[in-house]
Amino acid sequence: MRYELYYWPGIQGRGEYVRLALEEAEADYADVARGARGVAAMMKMMETKGTPPFAPPFLKAGSLVIGQVANILFYLGPRLGLAPKAEPGQLWLHQLQLTVTDFVVEVHDTHHPLGPSLYYEDQKAPAKKRTEEFWNERVPKYMGYFERLLKDNGGAYVTGRRLTYIDLSMFQLVEGLRYAFPNRMKAFEKKIPGLLELRDKVAARPNIKAYLESDRRIAFNEDGIFRHYKALDF
Amino acid sequence: MRYELYYWPGIQGRGEYVRLALEEAEADYADVARGARGVAAMMKMMETKGTPPFAPPFLKAGSLVIGQVANILFYLGPRLGLAPKAEPGQLWLHQLQLTVTDFVVEVHDTHHPLGPSLYYEDQKAPAKKRTEEFWNERVPKYMGYFERLLKDNGGAYVTGRRLTYIDLSMFQLVEGLRYAFPNRMKAFEKKIPGLLELRDKVAARPNIKAYLESDRRIAFNEDGIFRHYKALDF
Repeated sequence: MRYELYYWPGIQGRGEYVRLALEEAEADYADVARGARGVAAMMKMMETKGTPPFAPPFLKAGSLVIGQVANILFYLGPRLGLAPKAEPGQLWLHQLQLTVTDFVVEVHDTHHPLGPSLYYEDQKAPAKKRTEEFWNERVPKYMGYFERLLKDNGGAYVTGRRLTYIDLSMFQLVEGLRYAFPNRMKAFEKKIPGLLELRDKVAARPNIKAYLESDRRIAFNEDGIFRHYKALDF
Repeated sequence: MRYELYYWPGIQGRGEYVRLALEEAEADYADVARGARGVAAMMKMMETKGTPPFAPPFLKAGSLVIGQVANILFYLGPRLGLAPKAEPGQLWLHQLQLTVTDFVVEVHDTHHPLGPSLYYEDQKAPAKKRTEEFWNERVPKYMGYFERLLKDNGGAYVTGRRLTYIDLSMFQLVEGLRYAFPNRMKAFEKKIPGLLELRDKVAARPNIKAYLESDRRIAFNEDGIFRHYKALDF
């Protein structure tokens, strides 16, 4: 199966969780909106009748068009060997990915507490307050939860002895927090030794390593979810 | 199968989307945390090893414990006759429910733009700005999307000719917006005639009607997701 991923071409953003899964599995896929007339094709698909996605990213798989990151990974997981085959394991993994989804919204809200349609520059003061709260309460809660799961499961991967797509997402969260908040993250890292080890293990996997070194991996930047603003990191 | 729902006992909140599905299907279920020692039991389940949920609501179904509203509905849907049996239809329905999930976060952020751990009283000014943006940009985008789907599918239900759990969620969104923002919603309603008709159709279903009239339906209040603050509704 040749997959088509549709996502904003200039950012890692939410599409990155899907890209990492496709890359790890060496799936045959096109990152459509990064090609010529790709964004126009993407916009057109959101205007169709039938089952139009609400927003990118979405995945075209044969005649199926699947939106929402966690839903895409739920579909791809067993097909790419990145999820268990049985329903209980799939639901558990999906539940964890939905918790990542929730966390990603909160990451975004650190620089956009007044909403996604205003510029960061117009909400700097509330962004500072939200970021303070994010690091005091939310990062320890979310990352602590995944650290605990990892430890309780023996420390190899989040759901046990085999790599799944949630481990790739953990890699991305650690990378993103390090990029956006280098100072705060440095102070926090001692609380998540298991996740750091997992991050290194994922980064060293041959397909992920090759991906990260390729130009298919877009660099972090200030249009994405994880943004580095000095005023928010001290 | 007797289901056990675990959710905060004093609010509709995120648990309500699950309650509506269980009630519509006349499922055999206990709303555990509303019973004696129920909250303690709920807290304990989040501390277990294995597959502890990150947060309520979660559903116990036999030996399975399933967290995240959309994941619970994905599981329950086909079992309760509220989702199609085939994979494409299930993924599409789930995608829509995940879009509702995103919208619910944004509803919550209207009164908590600086984060969930601070009181509304400590973030009144940013809440006003966020609410303004919410009604200018986000409500038309989300509710307009569902209105369009409904229209394009013939107007009976969101995904076609049969009721599914997404229709119950549409009912809840209309009810919630009417409760939290009566003035703003009144002005907006003319843009979503299809959703209003759907809301009435859901409310008139015998099982939903009986539920709404029972004390199992908790009243909207200012601890939930949809909160009525005069300062945010004009």
